[in-house]
Parts: sequence; C-alpha cells; structure tokens
Amino acid sequence: MANGYTGKVLRVNLTDGQIAVETPPESFYRRYLGGHGFVGYYLLNEVPCGADPLGPDNLLIFAGGATTGVPVAGGGRSSVGGKSPLTGLYGEAEAGGFFGAEMRMAGFDAIVIRGRAQEPVYLWVHDGEAEIRRAKHLWGLTTLECRRALQQELGDPRVRLAMIGPAGEMLSPLACIMHDVKHAAGRTGMGAVMGSKNLKAIAARGQTAIPIASPDDLKALARWMRDNWRSKAERLHDSGTAGGVMELNDFGALPTRNFQDGRFAGAEKISGQTMRDTILIDRGGCYACPIRCKRVVSVDDAEYHVDPEYGGPEYETIGAVGSNCGVDDLRAISKANELCNAYGLDTISTGMMVSFAMECYEAGLLTPADTDGIDLRFGNAAAMVQMIERIGKRQGLGDLLAQGPRVAAARIGRGAEQYALHVKGQPLPMHECRNRHGQALGYAVSPTGADHMHNFWDESMRREPVDRELQAFGVYTSLPPNELNVDKVRAYAHVSSWTWLDNQLGMCMFVPWTVDQLVQLVNAVTGWQTNVFELQLAAQRALTVARAFNLREGLTRADDALPARMATPFKSGSINERPVDPAVLDRHMSVFYGIMGWDPQTGVPTLATLQRLDLEWVAPHLGL
Amino acid sequence: MANGYTGKVLRVNLTDGQIAVETPPESFYRRYLGGHGFVGYYLLNEVPCGADPLGPDNLLIFAGGATTGVPVAGGGRSSVGGKSPLTGLYGEAEAGGFFGAEMRMAGFDAIVIRGRAQEPVYLWVHDGEAEIRRAKHLWGLTTLECRRALQQELGDPRVRLAMIGPAGEMLSPLACIMHDVKHAAGRTGMGAVMGSKNLKAIAARGQTAIPIASPDDLKALARWMRDNWRSKAERLHDSGTAGGVMELNDFGALPTRNFQDGRFAGAEKISGQTMRDTILIDRGGCYACPIRCKRVVSVDDAEYHVDPEYGGPEYETIGAVGSNCGVDDLRAISKANELCNAYGLDTISTGMMVSFAMECYEAGLLTPADTDGIDLRFGNAAAMVQMIERIGKRQGLGDLLAQGPRVAAARIGRGAEQYALHVKGQPLPMHECRNRHGQALGYAVSPTGADHMHNFWDESMRREPVDRELQAFGVYTSLPPNELNVDKVRAYAHVSSWTWLDNQLGMCMFVPWTVDQLVQLVNAVTGWQTNVFELQLAAQRALTVARAFNLREGLTRADDALPARMATPFKSGSINERPVDPAVLDRHMSVFYGIMGWDPQTGVPTLATLQRLDLEWVAPHLGL
Repeated sequence: MANGYTGKVLRVNLTDGQIAVETPPESFYRRYLGGHGFVGYYLLNEVPCGADPLGPDNLLIFAGGATTGVPVAGGGRSSVGGKSPLTGLYGEAEAGGFFGAEMRMAGFDAIVIRGRAQEPVYLWVHDGEAEIRRAKHLWGLTTLECRRALQQELGDPRVRLAMIGPAGEMLSPLACIMHDVKHAAGRTGMGAVMGSKNLKAIAARGQTAIPIASPDDLKALARWMRDNWRSKAERLHDSGTAGGVMELNDFGALPTRNFQDGRFAGAEKISGQTMRDTILIDRGGCYACPIRCKRVVSVDDAEYHVDPEYGGPEYETIGAVGSNCGVDDLRAISKANELCNAYGLDTISTGMMVSFAMECYEAGLLTPADTDGIDLRFGNAAAMVQMIERIGKRQGLGDLLAQGPRVAAARIGRGAEQYALHVKGQPLPMHECRNRHGQALGYAVSPTGADHMHNFWDESMRREPVDRELQAFGVYTSLPPNELNVDKVRAYAHVSSWTWLDNQLGMCMFVPWTVDQLVQLVNAVTGWQTNVFELQLAAQRALTVARAFNLREGLTRADDALPARMATPFKSGSINERPVDPAVLDRHMSVFYGIMGWDPQTGVPTLATLQRLDLEWVAPHLGL
Repeated sequence: MANGYTGKVLRVNLTDGQIAVETPPESFYRRYLGGHGFVGYYLLNEVPCGADPLGPDNLLIFAGGATTGVPVAGGGRSSVGGKSPLTGLYGEAEAGGFFGAEMRMAGFDAIVIRGRAQEPVYLWVHDGEAEIRRAKHLWGLTTLECRRALQQELGDPRVRLAMIGPAGEMLSPLACIMHDVKHAAGRTGMGAVMGSKNLKAIAARGQTAIPIASPDDLKALARWMRDNWRSKAERLHDSGTAGGVMELNDFGALPTRNFQDGRFAGAEKISGQTMRDTILIDRGGCYACPIRCKRVVSVDDAEYHVDPEYGGPEYETIGAVGSNCGVDDLRAISKANELCNAYGLDTISTGMMVSFAMECYEAGLLTPADTDGIDLRFGNAAAMVQMIERIGKRQGLGDLLAQGPRVAAARIGRGAEQYALHVKGQPLPMHECRNRHGQALGYAVSPTGADHMHNFWDESMRREPVDRELQAFGVYTSLPPNELNVDKVRAYAHVSSWTWLDNQLGMCMFVPWTVDQLVQLVNAVTGWQTNVFELQLAAQRALTVARAFNLREGLTRADDALPARMATPFKSGSINERPVDPAVLDRHMSVFYGIMGWDPQTGVPTLATLQRLDLEWVAPHLGL
C-alpha cells in the first residue's frame, strides 16, 4: 500500500482490565474506512452468535473515520456500535460534537471494549495511552454532573467525554451515549450496552495531529466550504435542523400524534424559525464546522427552567416530543430535550414511547391508574415532560416505557402493538414515509431498524443539484415521492450506500459536499487515489457485513417490514400521502435484495456478492 | 437531463434505400455511452434471434463514443459491430485513425445499417446528410485503389473512409473493415458483414464541430497530455506497439510457432526497435493524438516491395505473421501487413490461420499437394506471404483458411482441431496466457472470443502507478501473474470493465490517462458530473447486453473455454509459464459470473442484475 495511511485501535477488556493497542494494516482501513465499517467488522468477527447485548460478550465500539477530527466542515462525527438491546441486532449510532475528534487526537481511531467491569469505571484516554479508572463516585450522576466531576478530577476543562446518564446505567434500551452533554449517539440503545459494562464514561484528551496526506488539498476544500456553505446550508445555520418544519408540515410529512397525521396545527409554534425568534440564545457547532446548526436555548419561567448547557432541541426531538405528542410548546420540548440529554435518553425513541403511551391512553389501554394520575393525552405538554422524567428514572409507567416498544406493547396488550411504531424494535424517527416511499423501503431494510441516518429522501436528495447527483449514481428517470418502482429501488440502493458512507468516514450528512468533493476529501486525508466506485464498494461492503450480522442473529425477511400504520391513511384526511401497500413494498424488497447482491427471496448475501466485495471471510457466518 | 448532450444516429436500410435520422434522448447516451455500448443495444434490440450474420437481417453498426473526434489524445477511435460470421455471436471491433472522428463531424454519432443492397454501393455521408451511391466500379478493388477512386470521385482528398477489400467482398470471416487503408477494425469478421450487404465503403466528410460542454477543461486535459505523454508512452512513439517484443520474449510470452513456445530466437530481428532502425521511414498517428505510435515502413528490394501508404505492422501483426509463424524477416512481415490491409484481412486471424496451416503441414495433415507446392513450414517467410495472398484471393488452400479456424480444422480433420487456437471461433491474439492467467479468463469470457481489446494484463496494469489504480478498483492484494484466485477474478471484473469502457467512449487504451483524468474528460465533453461508479455501471451494462445477446444466440458455459493447448506446457521447456488447468479456470469462471451478477452456474445475468444495471428491457431476451 503506497501511502501508509494507518493508525491505532485501542482494545480494552473491562473484565480483566487488559488494555492493548493494535495497528491494523492500511488495507483494513481501505476496506472498512472506519465508523460503521469498523463496527460491523468487529461485531461479526468477535461477538459470539446469540450473545446477550447486555452481557460481557458484547462489544462496544467507538470508531471514527477518515475525516473524523480532520479540520474541515463536517469532520466532527464518529460512530459507536454494538449488538443492540433494542433490536437484538446490529446496533450503531453516530454523533457529532468533539469526542470523536478528541479520541483520534488522543491517539486512537477506534476503541473496542469488551467484558464488564466489576464496579463502575471510566476510561481515560490521552496522548496514546489509556487507563481504566474507578467511577463509583460518578454513578447515578446526570451527564452534566458527570462532566463537571471529570473535568475537575482530570484537571482539564477541555477533556471530551462520551458517557451515559442514569438511563444507561439502568440498562434502558432507549439509552443513548452522550458526547459532552449535548451531542447524542442516540439510536439502538448503545447507552445500555455501555451501562451493562459498568462503563460510565470515556474521557479523551490529546494533541496528536491526525495525519493528512495532502494538507494543501485539505485546506483548499476546507476554505471552499467555509466560503460557500451559506448558499446551500444557510437555513441550517439560521434555524437549525428544525428549519424545515413548516415545509414538512405543508407537505403533510410532519409526524403528528404518533403518526396518526402528517400535519400539525401547532407546527409554526415549534418551528426552527420560532425557536430562533424566541428562546434561542446561541448557536453551537461540531468540531471544525462553520455551519453551526446546533441550538442553544434558554428557558426560565414559572413552568420551565432549561439549562443552556444542554444545548437545544434538534428537529428529531421537536418532532418526537413535539408534534408527535401533539405538543406545541417549545419550552416543554426544550425541557424534554434537556431531560433526555441529562438522563442519556434517545429523544426519538423516548418521544415515540411517550406518543405510544398517549395513544394507548386515549384508546383506554392505559388509565390514570397506570400513569399515577398523569393525564397522558396528546397535547399535554406537562404530561409529556413528566413522563420523560419517569422514563429516565424508570419510575411507574416510565419503567415500562423505558423497555422499548416491543416489551411495553406486549405488557399492555389488548392491541397496543398497533400503536407501537417501530421496525425491528426501533421506533420510527420523525420522517413520514407514506409520502416518501423510498424512505419506507429504507426504514424496512436498515440494519438498525427505522433510522433516519441510514436512509434517503425521496423528495429532495440532500446534495444539490439533485438531478445531477442522481444521474451520477446511474438513475436517469424522475422518481415521484409517493410510489415505489425499480428505478427508485436502484436509486435507494446506490444513493443510500453513499449516505451510509458518511457514517464510515465520520462525515456529517448535512454539510453540502458534492460527491466529487467528498472523494477529494478522502484523498486529501489518506493519500489514496480513491473514487466513487471504490467508496461505493466500501459502503456496500459495510452494509453487507451488517446484514450478515443480523442474519446470523436470526433476522429473516419478515423482519424487514413496516408497522401496520404505514399501510393506512392519515386519520384526518389525505395530504399527499399514499399508504404503503405491504404487497408492493414486499415486491420491491426483493428488487432491493437483488440489487444489493443478496438473494432476492431470502435477503442473504450470495457468495458471489461476498467475492465481489472482498468479503469471503463472511461466508462461514452465513453458512455459505 | 441537465446538459442536453445528444446527437444524431443515421439509419440506413440498404434493401429499400431508406435513410432516416434519429435523435436519441440524452439518457440513451448516458446509459450506453457509444461504441461497444451502442453496438450491443442495437444488436439485441433489432437483430432477430438466429439471424444469419451474412444475411440482410444482420446490422452493421458504426459507432463513435463521447470522446471520438474530440481533439484530445486517444480520441480517434470508434467501433463497428454486428453479429459475427466468425463466431455466430456478438461481433465488434475498434479502429483508430480518422474515420470515426470524421463520421461524427459529418453529423452522426453512429450509423446503423440493415438490409442488403441489390448491387455494390457505397454510402456518402457529409454535413448531416447521407446518400447511397453505386459502387460497381469499386468492387474488387484493394483498399488503396478504392480510396484513390473515391477521393477522385468525391473531389476531396480529405474524405475519410471505412471500407472493405476483396476479402470482405468474398465474405471471408477473417475480413476486417479498413479505415483509410491502414487502420483496421480487425476482429470478428465485420468486413464480411459489410460485404454481405454489398456495401463497399462509407465515405465521410464534415465540419460540424463536436459539441464540448467545457472547452477550457478539455483544452487543459489535452494540453496536459501533450506535455506529459512522453513520461509514460515514449516507447510507443519510439518503437510502436512492437516496442515490447523483447520484454515479452524474455518473459516467455511471445507467441511462437502457433503458440507452441513463448520465446522466439528471431525476436530481436522483429522488434519495434529493429523496425525503427531499419525500415521505418515515418511515424503516423490517429486523430488529435500526439503519441503517434503508428508505423510507416518502406521496403523495396529484390524480394519485397512494401508501399508506405499501407503504414507498417503493429505488434499484433508482427506476432501473428512473425514469431507465431516462425518468421523473423521484418520485410516479409511488412509485406504481409500490406497485403492484409489491401485485401482487408484481420492480420491476427489471418496470421493465426497461416500458423495453423503451418503446424498442420509439419504434422503431415497438409501436404504440398494441398498447398500448391508451397513449403509451408514454420519460418518460411515467403510461404507465409504467399499464403496470405491466397487467403485474400480465396485461392487454393487460402480459400479454406479464409473460412476461419472452425471450418478449416473440420475440413482438414484428423486432429487438426488441436492446432486451431481460438475461443468461440475467433483466433487468439498475440498474448500468451499461460503466464498471465487473468488474461486466460479474459480470453474465455470475452463476448467476442479471444480478444486483446477486451482483456487486462496480469503483469502490468496499463496505467501507472499500477498499485494505486488496482486499489482504486478495490483490489488490495498482489496478484501473481501465473495463477487464478478470487482476488484476481475480482480485479479482472473491475479493471476489464474499465478497459471495455474505452471501447464505449472511443478512447485509445494506449493513451496513459489516469482513471480520474478519463472521468474528467467525459465530463468536459458531456457536461455530466459522472464518476467512476457511473462509468463502471455503464461498462457493466454494455458487457451484460453483449452477454445477453450471446446467450440468446445459444452460447452456453461450455463456450467460455480455452483451446486445449493452453493447458499444456511449452514445447521446448518452461519459461515462467504454468499451463491453465481447465478445472481451475472453470472454478474461477463461476466466480467471475457471480461477480458480474450472472448466475454462477449458467452465466446468465440475473433479473436482479438487470434491475441493478437499468436493463430490465433485456429480461425477455433471456426468458426472465
């Protein structure tokens, strides 16, 4: 390998306290890239089949990618993965912020943790070294309390943290891993995996510069984006990820009252623009990014006090605890955001558990006796906030909801399953798919269950100009949003592969890099002469490994399905939507499997596909 | 489609004289690109299953690609295709020179000819117009005579021609189509298809500039290559395509005496360097190319007179009528080259028919009675030249040999088949595959039969630096030349797809464009934002269409096989070679099929692959 682009992987066994450093060959980096690619590799290779997600055999993998920590817009992201306690399958989430960058500057491209500490510990990673430290005094703390304690203990206010709150300690599959209290690696319950290992936090600090093959090329790209992002991402800066609330609402794609509707009367009150004009006090960003789409809000009135340290709500949060709970009070939404960040709860899954409970309540499946008297109707902002607090503390009904949609719906019974909107156990994120059928397919087939980080947007490809990017992936016909056809499935396969790539590189999907620029960026960092073809191979390789992991753990085609509600119309009348006919989805599932090189009937990657993707080692895991 | 990159296709029906002009949509260009891509599309769509290659239902398709006629190094090439009379399958050949460029400047990206004229005609294409003209007076002429006649008749010495000589008129499947007397579209017998249509020539002249989306980008690329080609292609200029004869000979890869050996005692006497120092009087080139790898030789002595108008021998010719016939006399080789160009014979197939006959003769299967007394031993230069003349005129044994290896071997019988070295009926070109097993696979699976234009070179990828280019196609391990493994098959599939792409674009494989530069070139011309991924899709699309055509015409897996000799060692001892074990080849054939998305057992493209490649229209042709 020409350039020698390699780094170090830290191995930590919490059971016996052993720590080791590995230096994988460059070909490993080039095949798997990092992030989601590393996660799948380690999970399939090293987690025994059938392992308990909350047992010592599970791994917890923190992994940056080629662009994580690189001083360029969007380079602040990293992944964390393990077998998911929410789905029992491939689990992985990404977060922005600064932790991933700091982990790499502390000397490690990835940290692979196995085993389980006897008592609470944290991991202190700095300047190429790592030590396991006692954390009994941190156990039970909120994330902000934990951060303050560790900053003091380590004597460095600039230490960066990945940590869990009480929710993770209490093994809720809704628990996320918080980076520095306001950046969440939200989905698939990785906080519970961390909690199960008795690992409260990883603290990272380092000054090792990430090696850059062509600093001048990198600087030119960084400069270009610094000077040009506004033309494509001004709204993100101005109004945050919630800047599109009104657009979604107008289109009928704003999840409302547990996805019963696509339009919410209170939409304007919870929009990013309203937030900007009311409670916003500052904008935040991730490592090296000029766009600064993160919100910092302050609320301090008779009803709510929201600490600006916890940032402010993203669109996903606004949807999940706002419109989807029928709540139009930005203060309550911000409070819910704070609570989730403090307890270490995924705002999407948590909001969806509340909206699920609200619908159960309105349907009479839950009563005030179940809710300790809380009037859990849609639109009751205070009830939503109270319920989140209970989920965080696993109190009362909160203890049940904290166990995720499958367990909660089964316990409530009497048809509650119809209100539990999830795929493979993971609640839907805030993207209506009845008017975006490509996304419906994406929800159904994503290895993590319903996921907005592993999908594509029918109506507006994320990079402009849309048409040209689609054509560059071999799609030459227009794709109406509310239908499925072979062209759209092909587009989904090719374009979503490219989207997944962001999660291998540690790149933010919001930064409007063109396809070509992203290739240039990887080349500037690595010194490779890579191209869209090789990167698409790498993306499909990672997706295929994740698929293989899931199949090994028992996934079948029947699991690649949507909640029944997606096949029904909106409650209060049609707004652009077209229910997703399960038979049509199923037919196009076969097409998707085939296009991915998986058996069109079973969805099992073929041996030929493993050979095409340089994945022959996967064959035995699939019995091939 | 954003840019509007489109052009015109000329349709000519020689049976009824109808002429029409079509303007395909841009998506057609983007899906098929041109050249080989257009050929497959028209053949599969429009030639009836089982059509006689020499009947009026066959098509003859002249097609440039995006870079044909573009003023940049390598842009002088174009394709001509039809169902092959040599193989009964997908037929296609490419040529450099100037005709393709002139055809496009005359207004047509492609000319699709069907039917059969009552009597000899030629087609006169100029400035967006076309007319069918009588050619009785041209019938029987050599290519040079035909050119002179047409230049005079059309009153323009700069008219460019694609034409046949007497060999095509007499329907020999060894017949090629000559462009301007010294550039041959050699393989698969397209000259016979042209002859069967009573079409002597296409004359083209025009001044329509080929539309260029980004002239400045194009100029920058052209300038770069003009200033830099010497560092990578100096030997091509200096010594022509035969500049590597000694290297091949040292490695044991110079086909010698009908592939009995890999090293030839007279190699140095026939090398490009010797040619340069003896009979070379000038260098020639193709449209817009600074490399000028073409030879112009002059011989005028007691034994041989060679007209410089016919250029000079390429490596393929030197191998086929030289070392492979045991001939070490550059004058005789040049004479053979002149005769082939004059009669319109493919020098490879023709040389191979002579070497076949020589081995039959030495084995006693042919006697002086069969050869009219010619002593047809290996090394007899005069005999080789005489036999080529007879093949061109279809006289005596030449009439039999002119019918190609299958017919000739069957007629001679008594085991002659073992000396007829061909794949699917097409004789091997001058590349030994026993020390380059990737190429062995390439010979076996190419839709045109054994072909050097549709292959890849194990020991030296054609673009430098080799390693980096291989990695960019997802191959991360080294590939020993004389073995097959899954990595090599994957490399073959990915890299040879890229090579085929040249034949869709009208780009010369000898011009050392990097992968990235070729993408830039296509973008500069078309205004697309294409990339390696989309172009690889296009290449695999074209290959899959060609495969589908062959399958429809009855091809089976058994046809993807090498001549038995490739499984045997060299006659006079080992030189790096390792006979190609048919079982090993067969095993890797399945791997290749699978990697291409074809059924690993049958080699039939799967429906999923058709869907992936936007080729659903092909399914009915395969009964899918």
